[in-house]
Amino acid sequence: MNRQELIKEIKEKQTFLCVGLDTDIKKIPQHLLHEEDPIYSFNRAIIDATAPYCVAYKPNLAFYECGGLNGWKSLDKTIHYLRENYPHHLIIADAKRGDIGNTSKMYARCFFEEMGVDALTVAPYMGEDSVTPFLEYPDKWVILLALTSNKGSHDFQLTEDATGERLFEKVLRQSQQWADADRMMYVVGATQGKLFEDIRKVVPEHFLLVPGIGAQGGSLEEVCKYGLTKDCGLIVNSSRAIIFADSTERFAEVAAEKAKEVQQQMAELLK
Amino acid sequence: MNRQELIKEIKEKQTFLCVGLDTDIKKIPQHLLHEEDPIYSFNRAIIDATAPYCVAYKPNLAFYECGGLNGWKSLDKTIHYLRENYPHHLIIADAKRGDIGNTSKMYARCFFEEMGVDALTVAPYMGEDSVTPFLEYPDKWVILLALTSNKGSHDFQLTEDATGERLFEKVLRQSQQWADADRMMYVVGATQGKLFEDIRKVVPEHFLLVPGIGAQGGSLEEVCKYGLTKDCGLIVNSSRAIIFADSTERFAEVAAEKAKEVQQQMAELLK
Repeated sequence: MNRQELIKEIKEKQTFLCVGLDTDIKKIPQHLLHEEDPIYSFNRAIIDATAPYCVAYKPNLAFYECGGLNGWKSLDKTIHYLRENYPHHLIIADAKRGDIGNTSKMYARCFFEEMGVDALTVAPYMGEDSVTPFLEYPDKWVILLALTSNKGSHDFQLTEDATGERLFEKVLRQSQQWADADRMMYVVGATQGKLFEDIRKVVPEHFLLVPGIGAQGGSLEEVCKYGLTKDCGLIVNSSRAIIFADSTERFAEVAAEKAKEVQQQMAELLK
Repeated sequence: MNRQELIKEIKEKQTFLCVGLDTDIKKIPQHLLHEEDPIYSFNRAIIDATAPYCVAYKPNLAFYECGGLNGWKSLDKTIHYLRENYPHHLIIADAKRGDIGNTSKMYARCFFEEMGVDALTVAPYMGEDSVTPFLEYPDKWVILLALTSNKGSHDFQLTEDATGERLFEKVLRQSQQWADADRMMYVVGATQGKLFEDIRKVVPEHFLLVPGIGAQGGSLEEVCKYGLTKDCGLIVNSSRAIIFADSTERFAEVAAEKAKEVQQQMAELLK
């Protein structure tokens, strides 16, 4: 899915919500545990219920890898289900990969060729040649970590160099030499508040993938105040607050209600 | 495996070699492709042939993930084979993971509980709470990226802050508040030459996992000149130069010869 298609989806559906599929087997409704593949059954129900209210889905790889072979199978089936039934939703593998060129190339093959997702989160610490192998696939996206939503984001990402440039700003600035706003997005945590203003100074046009509203406490209004562009420029993720809003047989219905609430807020903010 | 056990192995076997199991299906000998699980057959043969000459094995996750379900199966079998037959070898999952606390916890469960490896490489960009969940397992190791072997290591890792401290030094210094030399190692690329001297100023005692000799061009002598400590303090990895040294039916035999050559160099350097 390219940038124009993404913008079109956002405008038509009046939403820039991404539903995070952080599907923890310990948190899904009990009655699903009798199913053959509880994680997949859960995901399918959540997807069918929330699809009208979001433009993207983001499975977090950790939650599948921790199930070993079965987890990997559930992920595979979930992505196939999305590709077949919801081809206009962006599929983001939240994997935070990044390694020497030779190895990043293997990860790129894994996620973009074998698995067929549209976008992958990538960690910047190892620099250019750890990121560029992911940029060789047309219409696929790299979503580079810039300023994350967690407390530890302050440990290194805010470190200032001698000129006063902070590490996250250097990542934003330097990585623009590797790809433009048609191929790269950045992760910026919703908990970073006013720092969005500084982010937009360096990347005025790029899409930002914003985790951290909901369970992590970030505010959608504040994110939009500083982060929205004329093309929207934001994909805001919510995971736990939507998918685990209810743990009864009504879980999908309640997830849809929660997603719809966010969508309606977003429609207001897009005006 | 704890630090004392690791040091004992190194001294007894006179080697600090780690064999990297970067098992690329496109590079293994043709005749293995007829086996039921070519990757696993290759790994088993390489392990049996090289075990006397090394203290650790390091499967790189990318090479397994890119095979999808089958790749994951091969990895699982390889790790089981190692645990059952070579319990005194350190098993390092080279995964370079790291995410918000909630997610890192899932990765830790995946690698340390489900998979049962001894050590995991972790990326530092997201800071303390992305690393500490991996430190909750006794006798398991976090191997934090500090100064990697690739060209892109210069992009961000060498950035100096206002006080002249470089990012990799800050990672080394700050992460010592999270765990000591019994629980944490650092990745330092063999290609970094004299910078090992600076590394040892910040972490005089820690074990360093050193990739980059062999195919990537780093020098074992130079690494040892600046990196060796009284307890050795180094685990030096070689992947392609050992496991893909020969592509005929003699591949395992040749891998053993190559590993033995490195072991003999190491025995000299340990004197």
